[in-house]
Parts: sequence; structure tokens; C-alpha cells
Amino acid sequence: MDGDDFTQPGEDARPLLYLEDLKVGQRFITGRCVISSDAIKDFARQFDPQPFHLSEEGAKDTLFGGLAASGWHTASLTMRLQVQTGPRLAGGVIGASSEISWPKPTRPGDELHVESEILAIRPSQSRPGRGILTIRSDTLNQRGEVVQTMTVNLIAQRRP
Amino acid sequence: MDGDDFTQPGEDARPLLYLEDLKVGQRFITGRCVISSDAIKDFARQFDPQPFHLSEEGAKDTLFGGLAASGWHTASLTMRLQVQTGPRLAGGVIGASSEISWPKPTRPGDELHVESEILAIRPSQSRPGRGILTIRSDTLNQRGEVVQTMTVNLIAQRRP
Repeated sequence: MDGDDFTQPGEDARPLLYLEDLKVGQRFITGRCVISSDAIKDFARQFDPQPFHLSEEGAKDTLFGGLAASGWHTASLTMRLQVQTGPRLAGGVIGASSEISWPKPTRPGDELHVESEILAIRPSQSRPGRGILTIRSDTLNQRGEVVQTMTVNLIAQRRP
Repeated sequence: MDGDDFTQPGEDARPLLYLEDLKVGQRFITGRCVISSDAIKDFARQFDPQPFHLSEEGAKDTLFGGLAASGWHTASLTMRLQVQTGPRLAGGVIGASSEISWPKPTRPGDELHVESEILAIRPSQSRPGRGILTIRSDTLNQRGEVVQTMTVNLIAQRRP
């Protein structure tokens, strides 16, 4: 857990967003979180136990040339930033599918934030109360480098 | 950590695979792991703190109708199954990009395993020692239902 690393505004300050409140081109910027060397290794032990994620020593002679976070760790932290400090979607942030890439590794001490933009909104054919929201989310480090880029389809609720 | 839930063959028993050892159409099946209610909630507290991932009670009146694992938890467990019991790629399992979808939620007590197939192999244009491996990986539960399907591009090493 690294809850203290988050710059998080009060959750109540965020308006609850229904499908009708959203527009193509709308942009969102999250708070920031710092990823520690210990957090990288802890995630790796649980989910991605490979030398370049487990220790500085083991990472030296690998493609990464030093400790790097698992891409799934970056994805999971991106989710937390979105859930806690991104757009507050009615019904929650529920992904149906996603395209994701990692142009650069996340390194110990990196400070991450997420910048996202709504690319498309379409009503559901089968479920009148819902729609699908396509969002592009870039996760950036403190040097403005993109460490992850993702296009995700989210389920959005219509106002009841 | 849920290390005891894994059916894992000895790592040394798996041959080290270089680009030259791989063929389109080759299939792999991993060991299995069980996802507990506690593990779902623990992951959610760290990375996806939403009512349908945090508690049975909070999940009742949501789209999921009961506790469900974060999609990123399913993705992370899929990675662990692949790393520990999937094809043992020389240089490690390093993803460049991925398309991922979650057709069904992962539920407490589900036993997951991964079935994957090599879809394409292409040598790198820029780096002669490497290639890109496109693999489709389906994560299935104990009823044979696909809870996650992923097409991932991995970096593979040529034999030195």
C-alpha cells in the first residue's frame, strides 16, 4: 500500500458524471503518485516475479538495465489514479476492453499522473440505460514521458 | 501473496525458448491458481478501490451484483501464471503492447488457468538480436468460461 503518495482532492468535490454529462474531446488530469522501489518489488513478488522487477542486482544484465516496474503495476496504479482522482463516473469505472502499450519503463521514484480524453461516446444497442465511452489515457512520469498509453472502452450509465 | 494456490512444475523442467524455438500455432497451457475473496479485496484497496471490488455488501447493488475481481487483478494473475508456468522465454516475458478484454467477471473462489497460442512471429527491423512474438492468451475459470482474452506482443530473443 502506498496511500500516502497520492495527492487526492476530496472525493465529494468531484461531480457524479452520467453519459449525458460527457462530451467527445473532454479532458481530465488526475492527481499524482510516486512509485517506490519497495512497491515495485512487492508487486513483482505477487504478480510478475522476473529478475528485472524483483531486485536492482538481478535487473542489471537484462533488457531494462535496471529495476523497472511490471507493466501491470503501471496499469494498476493508473487505474487507482483514475478511480480516486479522475472523472467520477456514475456506476463506477468499469472497463470492457482496452488497448495498452508501454513505450518506456516505469522506474523507482517516478511520479506518475494520468491525462485522458474522451474519444467517442455511443449508446448501447442492447441496454438502453447504458453507453460505451472510449477514453484515451496516457500515464506520464515527472519528466513528461509517456510510460503507458491506453485506449479503453468503459461502461457509462444514463441519468435515471 | 497467494503462492500456495499455484500448481507449479519445477522451473528447471521448462526448456528455455529462443525465437528460433517458436512456431506459429504452438500452444501452451499454464498451471492453475485460486483467487480468494480476501485477495480480491486486498488488490482493490491497493489499486481499484470501488464498491464492487471491495466488499460483498458494497457489491450487491452494482452492475456486478456481487464481489468481482478488478480486471487488472485478473490481468496480473494471468501474468504470474504465464511467468511461472507458461512458456519460458529467453530474456523473460516482456510485453510491448496488449489488447485485452474481460468478457466475464472473475469471482471469489474461481480457479484460473491460461491457454495461449502463438499467432505471429516477426524479426525486429531495428534490432537483429530480437523479434516480436504475438500471442493470444485466454484466461479461463473452472467452468471453462473465458474471463479475460488478450493478444499481446512480446519481445523475444534470438539464440546468441
